Amino acid sequence: MLYAMTSKLNLLNNLRIVLCQTSHPGNIGSTARAMKTMGLHQLYLVQPKHFPDAEANSLACGAVDLLENAVVCDTLEEALKGCALVIGLSARKRQLSHELVAAREAATRAAGVVQSEQTVALVFGTEMSGLSNRELDLCQLLAMIPTNAEFSSLNVAAAVQVMCYELRVAITEGAITNSENQEKTPLATNDEVEGFYQHLEETLIKIGYLNPLEPKKLMQRIRRIYARARLEKEEVNVLRGILKLTQKPRSFEQQNSESKKNV
Amino acid sequence: MLYAMTSKLNLLNNLRIVLCQTSHPGNIGSTARAMKTMGLHQLYLVQPKHFPDAEANSLACGAVDLLENAVVCDTLEEALKGCALVIGLSARKRQLSHELVAAREAATRAAGVVQSEQTVALVFGTEMSGLSNRELDLCQLLAMIPTNAEFSSLNVAAAVQVMCYELRVAITEGAITNSENQEKTPLATNDEVEGFYQHLEETLIKIGYLNPLEPKKLMQRIRRIYARARLEKEEVNVLRGILKLTQKPRSFEQQNSESKKNV
Repeated sequence: MLYAMTSKLNLLNNLRIVLCQTSHPGNIGSTARAMKTMGLHQLYLVQPKHFPDAEANSLACGAVDLLENAVVCDTLEEALKGCALVIGLSARKRQLSHELVAAREAATRAAGVVQSEQTVALVFGTEMSGLSNRELDLCQLLAMIPTNAEFSSLNVAAAVQVMCYELRVAITEGAITNSENQEKTPLATNDEVEGFYQHLEETLIKIGYLNPLEPKKLMQRIRRIYARARLEKEEVNVLRGILKLTQKPRSFEQQNSESKKNV
Repeated sequence: MLYAMTSKLNLLNNLRIVLCQTSHPGNIGSTARAMKTMGLHQLYLVQPKHFPDAEANSLACGAVDLLENAVVCDTLEEALKGCALVIGLSARKRQLSHELVAAREAATRAAGVVQSEQTVALVFGTEMSGLSNRELDLCQLLAMIPTNAEFSSLNVAAAVQVMCYELRVAITEGAITNSENQEKTPLATNDEVEGFYQHLEETLIKIGYLNPLEPKKLMQRIRRIYARARLEKEEVNVLRGILKLTQKPRSFEQQNSESKKNV
């Protein structure tokens, strides 16, 4: 299981992010950081306006290694060498007959390709005008991140972040499933929870909240609350401690004088 | 169909992004831009270090209106007023028993709640250390964006971008048809739940369960149980009814003689 996960994560190495003619070096730095947080490493830069650059390093913030290993190219063709699938990011619909899919669908397709150990490139255009028609011609698929129709101006590094996130999820699928974040603290068993309900019912009758002659659906309602919470063992103890004192309240002075028992 | 889409997009207005003690105003600007590209508008800032600020305006880049309308608060409690679900963003696993889900699952649940016209808040901590334990206590659910285990340092605006993207997709793409999320009964608002906690704390002191001089983590533990349950309005009433009688128990004979008031 762990082995399977590691090998899935290795597939992220087959993904390449290509930035075309980026104007602001800060965006290159933020792109590196966005990539590395998602486990991607291959950064290609086609004719960046300023690179290397202190601003890029500063915004990379722990992902400077990606900048150091970035491949700077003169042409997009050069940056796409060896790629099995080239996906262009587009902010708007294009007239031409490229297939256009949503970001998630594009990530799913990319995941399919990297699985067979082939490289997939995601190509991002300039900050001002995106990809040129000539650049689009080199793409096999266009991907669009769904945005607000009245304000679709996604920052390029933000677009890289969303795509890298989608790629990571598509490739690892369910990485944080229950098994990984399985609580270390054990859940209460069914009989422990039932014991609590019984104790609670008894207490509610005693304080005059629940009329045993006319119980209505009260216990059912309350059970639903705790059922949703999925009580832990320790929590059942806390709640039963409260019930015990609800039935027989004591001051702290009393408790202390009783030789400091724990509740 | 178009009508249905427009009304779905309106649901994005029920989402609130809350940034806690943000250090870099640039991150506030980038957050505004990230939100607006995805169609979100409600920005709340808890004790921002610098705000308003030219750097924030510059990075907002067309989303300055969100900054102008941002609500600046002194406390997180204030920023969460009226919210039916509060989701905290967490970069790491926390020890205590908050429910932790992946970003996508969190977005699906949020979509279910906004569908019934209730407000959902997403809370983001500081750049350096994320959310404090005290802030986490005010959340009902933790969401984690899956990241590279060796470099999980997602920029806060990048995290906002990913979450807003997931929310937009969840809300516009029928991810909300899940019958589980179709809450017919309205959830309690944040202040109603806080009112219950206060009543509970008072009661626990009165019965001698909670020593106000030595409270330990007791209230935190108990809050987590109910946070996981996500209380409905009606349930808060039931629980407070119990607390009332815990503080002042009565027999049913007494109650009947008091001209059959309802609890």
